[in-house]
Amino acid sequence: MGTVPLLRDEDLSPEAAEVFAEIRALRGTDYVNNFWRAMAHDPARLREIWDRLKVLMGPGELDPLTKEMIYVAVSVANSCTYCIHSHTAQAKAKGMTDAMHMELLAVIGTAMQTNGLVTAMQVEVDEVFKA
Amino acid sequence: MGTVPLLRDEDLSPEAAEVFAEIRALRGTDYVNNFWRAMAHDPARLREIWDRLKVLMGPGELDPLTKEMIYVAVSVANSCTYCIHSHTAQAKAKGMTDAMHMELLAVIGTAMQTNGLVTAMQVEVDEVFKA
Amino acid sequence: MGTVPLLRDEDLSPEAAEVFAEIRALRGTDYVNNFWRAMAHDPARLREIWDRLKVLMGPGELDPLTKEMIYVAVSVANSCTYCIHSHTAQAKAKGMTDAMHMELLAVIGTAMQTNGLVTAMQVEVDEVFKA
Amino acid sequence: MGTVPLLRDEDLSPEAAEVFAEIRALRGTDYVNNFWRAMAHDPARLREIWDRLKVLMGPGELDPLTKEMIYVAVSVANSCTYCIHSHTAQAKAKGMTDAMHMELLAVIGTAMQTNGLVTAMQVEVDEVFKA
Amino acid sequence: MGTVPLLRDEDLSPEAAEVFAEIRALRGTDYVNNFWRAMAHDPARLREIWDRLKVLMGPGELDPLTKEMIYVAVSVANSCTYCIHSHTAQAKAKGMTDAMHMELLAVIGTAMQTNGLVTAMQVEVDEVFKA
Amino acid sequence: MGTVPLLRDEDLSPEAAEVFAEIRALRGTDYVNNFWRAMAHDPARLREIWDRLKVLMGPGELDPLTKEMIYVAVSVANSCTYCIHSHTAQAKAKGMTDAMHMELLAVIGTAMQTNGLVTAMQVEVDEVFKA
Repeated sequence: MGTVPLLRDEDLSPEAAEVFAEIRALRGTDYVNNFWRAMAHDPARLREIWDRLKVLMGPGELDPLTKEMIYVAVSVANSCTYCIHSHTAQAKAKGMTDAMHMELLAVIGTAMQTNGLVTAMQVEVDEVFKA
Repeated sequence: MGTVPLLRDEDLSPEAAEVFAEIRALRGTDYVNNFWRAMAHDPARLREIWDRLKVLMGPGELDPLTKEMIYVAVSVANSCTYCIHSHTAQAKAKGMTDAMHMELLAVIGTAMQTNGLVTAMQVEVDEVFKA
Repeated sequence: MGTVPLLRDEDLSPEAAEVFAEIRALRGTDYVNNFWRAMAHDPARLREIWDRLKVLMGPGELDPLTKEMIYVAVSVANSCTYCIHSHTAQAKAKGMTDAMHMELLAVIGTAMQTNGLVTAMQVEVDEVFKA
Repeated sequence: MGTVPLLRDEDLSPEAAEVFAEIRALRGTDYVNNFWRAMAHDPARLREIWDRLKVLMGPGELDPLTKEMIYVAVSVANSCTYCIHSHTAQAKAKGMTDAMHMELLAVIGTAMQTNGLVTAMQVEVDEVFKA
Repeated sequence: MGTVPLLRDEDLSPEAAEVFAEIRALRGTDYVNNFWRAMAHDPARLREIWDRLKVLMGPGELDPLTKEMIYVAVSVANSCTYCIHSHTAQAKAKGMTDAMHMELLAVIGTAMQTNGLVTAMQVEVDEVFKA
Repeated sequence: MGTVPLLRDEDLSPEAAEVFAEIRALRGTDYVNNFWRAMAHDPARLREIWDRLKVLMGPGELDPLTKEMIYVAVSVANSCTYCIHSHTAQAKAKGMTDAMHMELLAVIGTAMQTNGLVTAMQVEVDEVFKA
């Protein structure tokens, strides 16, 4: 359906197979989702993105759930269907309740609205907001 | 500079002046930023948006700082200069440290990258991600 | 300031000068705005876009003011600063009052909000909406 | 299919059921489209958005059909599939002919093109366009 | 499925049929893809766009494959599913190998990431970059 | 002006200073542009992005100039002012002539137009385009 086929386990290069093994180990499930099966055509990029996501989306300055919700917000504003689905699922897996989900949506919707108004009115940045 | 002039206090309708008084009271400062001065041309909308933001961006299912960072994320993906400046400033006012800010940016940047890759490859949504 | 310099009248190719003369004649003013001064580097494209806009933005199935407001709406969603300014100015020149302007903004803002909500929830298209 | 399930009539909270009754009464049809069935998870937001849309999209400074076409334009630039379908359907219901539809598309397409050119050339805003 | 039906050969106006004949002749195939079948509702625009694309996407200052890849890049950033599919297919038809495709995606993904970072940090344009 | 201050050479951490030295060496100039001065607040990310860009934007499956033009195309569709300026400058430094620049813009503008039309008509993907 996509512009690149999804690779099955038996199609993987050794480098890609190694990343898949790490994904399975870290997540404690045999299921590897379609993004990784598409990225596996480019094993170097697959490795780089997996290594970065593994660290970045774990505990850090912000907690993992907050980061998943930020990911959802970016994906909505970019109209990335797959990304919205996958990161909403991961946010739920990390503890997002239905009530938190609805509030996340309310913030995104309101941000979209005021973004549109501000852009339409071309409001100048207040001096006090500049770093 | 914008497409609507910024209203000064002496230009406000009584309805708009009332909202400005509430903004000043809630924030504990005399400073009212440019977004409200542009919105004041439409006092009904000004009232509606202020009433909603006041509740929505306060404590709820998500904490106020998380909500400001979600707002920043949407604003970046929408390229809304004013919104990025104003909500980054508000996130800092609500406790975002420089280290948290840099991690927020890292998540946004990575989300933009994987959004682009997913969109370019037109990855199909995994059945397990659907509600 | 831009990525291509703005051409002055004395820099124009004969083909570009001819288009500028038509712009001046149709608009009844000597002022030619910056978009045309940038496009003039590519006289063939300048001619094509001017010829199309001249017809498309005049009276047709929709009235000229409606078309300018649609242009503003697209430009806001695309975050095109110059386009928002120039088409807001042209909408005003074609009769958009301040009250109409504020209602245009309210529609754009509300459309942005519900777009965000719909996208975040990934609402399926109702069968009745399909052509 | 989405990230939130669509609520059936029997799943609605009393507050949501009341909004659905108003939608049915105003539109003179029993059919309630999917957007409202998804929003019904958040009855407070459902109420707020319905109350606003009901007024905003009716007669005002601009006529209802013009406002639907502006809604379509925003939705196209935001790539919101559902929104494009639902507001195109509503524009047709409010009198948009096929010829008007094609002209609407032509304006949107041309606006997208000149938005891209202006952004790529980073054309500076003319002083005369500033409010 | 769309908002306008796809026209079959027997539905075409004479003007549209003429464009279809040219598409078939130039491409050496009887297959005419859905974009043209939708555009055929507006024969004047169909003619204009076909005439422009025919010249623009052929050999010129840039080679045809480079131009298809640029088209893909714009389509990804605009989240245009159809456009990504059709121009990826045309890029492959013009010689894009799988390895070139993956590098194209890597550049798009990285551009998306640094676009997000730059926008979030609101980096000022260096004087040396201005034309 | 931005949301993070630009770091001067004397403000850099040792890790950031090392990256700056590599940028200067590779480019053969003492000038380090503002993007890197903003990124330097996050030395780990600075290192990662510099290491990736250095390899990715050099010779590979696609030539370096083609990759810069693809970068410009993404940046235009994302409305990233800084990115458009910096990658247009780098494309010129790698050999893009004024005529090539104008053709790049023509392709971007036309892609924006047909993206808008396709999205507005919600054209279904042809089976032959699927991988």
